[in-house]
Amino acid sequence: MYKVEKLKVNYKTLEEFKKFREYGLQELSMFEDLEANIIEDDSVSPFYGIYFGDKLVARMSLYQVEKKFDRYFDPAQDYLELWKLEVIADYQNKGYGKALVEYAKSFGLPIKTNPRVKSKDFWDKMGFSSVAYEMERDRGENPLVWYPDGVKEQLH
Amino acid sequence: MYKVEKLKVNYKTLEEFKKFREYGLQELSMFEDLEANIIEDDSVSPFYGIYFGDKLVARMSLYQVEKKFDRYFDPAQDYLELWKLEVIADYQNKGYGKALVEYAKSFGLPIKTNPRVKSKDFWDKMGFSSVAYEMERDRGENPLVWYPDGVKEQLH
Repeated sequence: MYKVEKLKVNYKTLEEFKKFREYGLQELSMFEDLEANIIEDDSVSPFYGIYFGDKLVARMSLYQVEKKFDRYFDPAQDYLELWKLEVIADYQNKGYGKALVEYAKSFGLPIKTNPRVKSKDFWDKMGFSSVAYEMERDRGENPLVWYPDGVKEQLH
Repeated sequence: MYKVEKLKVNYKTLEEFKKFREYGLQELSMFEDLEANIIEDDSVSPFYGIYFGDKLVARMSLYQVEKKFDRYFDPAQDYLELWKLEVIADYQNKGYGKALVEYAKSFGLPIKTNPRVKSKDFWDKMGFSSVAYEMERDRGENPLVWYPDGVKEQLH
């Protein structure tokens, strides 16, 4: 229904990112690296997004964590960490967030995210569930995970 | 000026925690462990707080991370991770947050926190600074750190 695109790092994209609430050190760092020519214009980013016309209206960041760092899944394996899933205000409740999460699932890897507290219903619908809290791993996070077939929670 | 207390895990404290915005899996897990007698009433918690009368008005969680996991400080060492620093609405701007952060500093260890985006001015005043963003370490975080004398940023 919506076309999910891998976002390139360039000034146009970084300008669009300013419309999102969860703008932080990651984006500032990309901007500084671009200005200092540490990264090239149009280099790959960890962000995926959906455009409405030429306007970026939804985005998420994905990072593949290596198996040796996996403390969430059994069997231990590479998994995706998903963060900064966000749809800008006028475009919410139209399926953009769902389209991004389904895109993330299409890689076939387990997914872990640390959502904002008020988004629980959305993540329930997406098939994500809580893990048993472990302070030394989770600190102040509220981890939610998605298990592909054959994967379950890693118990410690 | 204010007395900082280490909070015990009991039903009264867990009830007070519900007044704080950043109530999440950590608190729910403590509640379930108490109900299931997995932890005893009045067992130690990672939380510190300040009472106004018998009302908990400010809190933070602290956890000492072991040197072998330190990816922020040079020389690598045990450090404190601080999260869920929060003062309830009617008691803000009265020095409660500052008192808690100064208490954390009094342990003499470096501190790392991942604050909400809008609290930058507060953390500046507390002497915290940004680190160079590293995606595989920081993901969606906006890490701020405080260096005791003789400690600097760990560069990778």
